[in-house]
Amino acid sequence: MPSRRTAPTLLRSSCPIAGALDVVGDRWTLLIIRDLVSGRRRYGDLASAEEGIPTNILADRLKRLEASGVIDSKPYQQNPPRYEYGLTEKGEALKPVLATLGVWGKQHVRGTRLPEAMKAALSHS
Amino acid sequence: MPSRRTAPTLLRSSCPIAGALDVVGDRWTLLIIRDLVSGRRRYGDLASAEEGIPTNILADRLKRLEASGVIDSKPYQQNPPRYEYGLTEKGEALKPVLATLGVWGKQHVRGTRLPEAMKAALSHS
Repeated sequence: MPSRRTAPTLLRSSCPIAGALDVVGDRWTLLIIRDLVSGRRRYGDLASAEEGIPTNILADRLKRLEASGVIDSKPYQQNPPRYEYGLTEKGEALKPVLATLGVWGKQHVRGTRLPEAMKAALSHS
Repeated sequence: MPSRRTAPTLLRSSCPIAGALDVVGDRWTLLIIRDLVSGRRRYGDLASAEEGIPTNILADRLKRLEASGVIDSKPYQQNPPRYEYGLTEKGEALKPVLATLGVWGKQHVRGTRLPEAMKAALSHS
């Protein structure tokens, strides 16, 4: 069932692979999803990913992901307002994409290895 | 076994998901892989994908993909020189990534559907 919170988008084609890449097709978005899968929730935790995501990109991607219904946010502090982020059902459904990318990377990109914690998180998908 | 033709790259981290995204993490690369999976071989065929890939991006991605050992090329004409492109073992191994993206897109991006031909091609992965 398609998510109801999908933001209106102009599709490049009717191909679902292209449609998926319009949402997650860049170097950073799926790393944010990875970190949410592994339990990071707050902006500062996401900003401290070891890949060194630029904060303007992190802020932009969080906004886009929320607009397309992949993540949601709730305030955990009022003044100043601060939010925790979480995966929606649509976001959780990206786990198999992370898993296949991880398998391919591990096998074909030298010098990479999947941490045990991430293996466990993805195996629940 | 890691491919021997991997171009030297500076990894952002030891995470295989990040490593994979360094190779295929953009809006276009996996669409080129999709088209090679579906049997397109020549530059003109790849350039005519319905998403309208800009030719400078296509040329750049073909060059990068060959440098990282995901595709290879062989000349089919000498004067002027023209090449056919094909997936290496490392490139064929991306089929599960395409498949999981396609499943997610079909389920979560409105207005998309996976053509029968592509379903068949990906089910052989």
